[in-house]
Amino acid sequence: MNYETIRLRHDNGILWLTLHRPATLNAFTVQMAGELIHAFESASDDDAVRVVIVTGEGKAFCAGMDLGSGGNVFGLDESLSPTLADMEQRLGDPDIANGVRDTGGRVALAIMACKKPVIGAVNGAAVGIGSTMLLSMDVRLASDQARFGFVFGRVGIAPEACSTWLLPRIVGVSQALEWFYRADVFDAQEALRGGLLRAVVPAAGLRAEAERIARGFISGRSAVSAALTRQMVYAGLGTHERDQAHRLESLAVFYTSQKDGREGVAAFRERREPRFTSTPSKDMPPFYPW
Amino acid sequence: MNYETIRLRHDNGILWLTLHRPATLNAFTVQMAGELIHAFESASDDDAVRVVIVTGEGKAFCAGMDLGSGGNVFGLDESLSPTLADMEQRLGDPDIANGVRDTGGRVALAIMACKKPVIGAVNGAAVGIGSTMLLSMDVRLASDQARFGFVFGRVGIAPEACSTWLLPRIVGVSQALEWFYRADVFDAQEALRGGLLRAVVPAAGLRAEAERIARGFISGRSAVSAALTRQMVYAGLGTHERDQAHRLESLAVFYTSQKDGREGVAAFRERREPRFTSTPSKDMPPFYPW
Amino acid sequence: MNYETIRLRHDNGILWLTLHRPATLNAFTVQMAGELIHAFESASDDDAVRVVIVTGEGKAFCAGMDLGSGGNVFGLDESLSPTLADMEQRLGDPDIANGVRDTGGRVALAIMACKKPVIGAVNGAAVGIGSTMLLSMDVRLASDQARFGFVFGRVGIAPEACSTWLLPRIVGVSQALEWFYRADVFDAQEALRGGLLRAVVPAAGLRAEAERIARGFISGRSAVSAALTRQMVYAGLGTHERDQAHRLESLAVFYTSQKDGREGVAAFRERREPRFTSTPSKDMPPFYPW
Repeated sequence: MNYETIRLRHDNGILWLTLHRPATLNAFTVQMAGELIHAFESASDDDAVRVVIVTGEGKAFCAGMDLGSGGNVFGLDESLSPTLADMEQRLGDPDIANGVRDTGGRVALAIMACKKPVIGAVNGAAVGIGSTMLLSMDVRLASDQARFGFVFGRVGIAPEACSTWLLPRIVGVSQALEWFYRADVFDAQEALRGGLLRAVVPAAGLRAEAERIARGFISGRSAVSAALTRQMVYAGLGTHERDQAHRLESLAVFYTSQKDGREGVAAFRERREPRFTSTPSKDMPPFYPW
Repeated sequence: MNYETIRLRHDNGILWLTLHRPATLNAFTVQMAGELIHAFESASDDDAVRVVIVTGEGKAFCAGMDLGSGGNVFGLDESLSPTLADMEQRLGDPDIANGVRDTGGRVALAIMACKKPVIGAVNGAAVGIGSTMLLSMDVRLASDQARFGFVFGRVGIAPEACSTWLLPRIVGVSQALEWFYRADVFDAQEALRGGLLRAVVPAAGLRAEAERIARGFISGRSAVSAALTRQMVYAGLGTHERDQAHRLESLAVFYTSQKDGREGVAAFRERREPRFTSTPSKDMPPFYPW
Repeated sequence: MNYETIRLRHDNGILWLTLHRPATLNAFTVQMAGELIHAFESASDDDAVRVVIVTGEGKAFCAGMDLGSGGNVFGLDESLSPTLADMEQRLGDPDIANGVRDTGGRVALAIMACKKPVIGAVNGAAVGIGSTMLLSMDVRLASDQARFGFVFGRVGIAPEACSTWLLPRIVGVSQALEWFYRADVFDAQEALRGGLLRAVVPAAGLRAEAERIARGFISGRSAVSAALTRQMVYAGLGTHERDQAHRLESLAVFYTSQKDGREGVAAFRERREPRFTSTPSKDMPPFYPW
């Protein structure tokens, strides 16, 4: 795919994914949504990608939905009257998929479905979908120049990108509701205090810090273990019970113990670094996806 | 309704709801439960109410269940032998509704069902139901004179008001269990450190701080966006999955983008404050309640 | 049962459970799993046990799975090809129970099923299952000598002991994933900052601090209230909704108010300490287990 709104760069196991519409502060469009979904689906099955780092070109991360386009700026087909039954029963029908489904949500689901760890490196303003797309990334770092805003209430719409589900799980229900109700823009220090970020670093050191964390996820670590961990953790945030976690983990340990686990145990006994060879493209255990 | 245990005051979008039995430290009764439920149901559909602030008259917030009444002080009908099947299949039957259902839980469910943001301003002792009724409010502030206590284990009963479900989601499972097991009274600073509170302020400044936060939720913000956000966040804490969040959010954005969202986008383009006109009483989208 | 890998000591309501294979840093074995499950099941029905405190003998807490044994070190039957349907439909069949089920998960489920509060007192290295078995304990304390590590990705296997479900609920999804991906060993201060621990204390004071907390859960507190609280909180972390919490709590208050609750209210009125007599072995209400 020939991307026009994002740029990809591979660096020794790390995929740098840069939002790239700098003339509009990397404002989000329906095209960008499609390109992000494609890029995360490709990264999920590309064994050369061990970690994805998402950042923005120029001074912003993503200034939000591009409100400059004509018609329904969210790309929605106003001639429809969709019901919850439509969403449950025919989510894939073209009129629903293209005219009703929230594009930010489609991106968030694609990021959560990716088998690779995802790090958000927020270099500047991250507003609206710029903030909510971060919630499906595993680790969020920000430059001290970053700003955030769940501004939907000021635009007159509801929050999106699965944020009503994810934000309370990340920062707690009280902080989530306050940020939604306030709908204003706040700085990186408040985002850090509120639990949205792992760390705030000087702007000049942001990429190096993101890479440092990513490298710690790769060297001597099993890519299949990371993929199963990520999928089990996000599944476990949803409806399933601890008994279901036990069932999945039992199978995950059962199968991994006979592949990378065999090498890991041998390396431990021989006091050497393991050399793992299982790959997410070919060696996911037979119960995946469940 | 002519309230005897609470007082209401409307102030330009804010409903001040004051627990008002000062002679008994605002101790909770079955009558107070009924009046609170009625007040929150009324506020939910009253477009003049944008935010509800709950506080207590005098030096206490709510000293807990009034243990001074005769018979079963919790208002329960001891002649019954209810089962979980009774609770699932005939929760509305008069003998179950009046003789078995936890009154604190009925209040908590009514607060969660309200379409308006709710702020708790804890002016003094909040013990037992005084503490647990706070959990279904969105933002909790306290005076430095406030005290808290999940004292059920010392009264010999189980926790109520949906607190076994809400408290772990607010402060984490470990802190929740410790406070339940200890069953003692602790001060506002411990409540703040434990994550129960957003802030502790000097007693003299409590109401002003609550109002300051409430005003930030109102001016230039869409009331329908806030209502949908609140209902989606509390629904999302329960059983439904991220896919369900995506379905609901898609519909919520779809419909709001054609009403307040149209004004919000226009205001953004014209660099002016939006003038939202959708109301929770008349303009909730057709998929609500789901 | 004659335990070989753990030691039990009763002290006036507290059961001290010590992991006891000091020659191997208390490394975890299939035998230890069986003994832990038996000990927690016994403690659950032993009214002399009000709180369980788990610690390790010698300088370690638990150094992880004993990787020194022959064959599949995790005790798994590699001749099988289990599916998720097997796990859902015949979890109790001997070949699945003994050859596929994760032993750490069986221990975690037994700890969560126990009717007594459980405190982890981490005296030294807690690695792999040494870290994950802590997650089903209610309160975690550590010596400043303790270390932690969710090292599964470095061993080449997936996380276990329900940790993909529990760890995100305790420390948040972002911190959980980072620790899983890093798969390294970290110190007690990082564990404290990350939310895994309630407190870090000097090594010499660890047992005294654990006992101090445990005593606060016992004196003048209802054992049945604590048992119901624990079971409702862990059930509530799973699939059930706030409505289900309300149903359970209603029944829990209904029945406890007529036993220990009657004494608690009388003691309150008479301004004296309550003398609770209900026991988890005989006085759990009729809807338990649900």
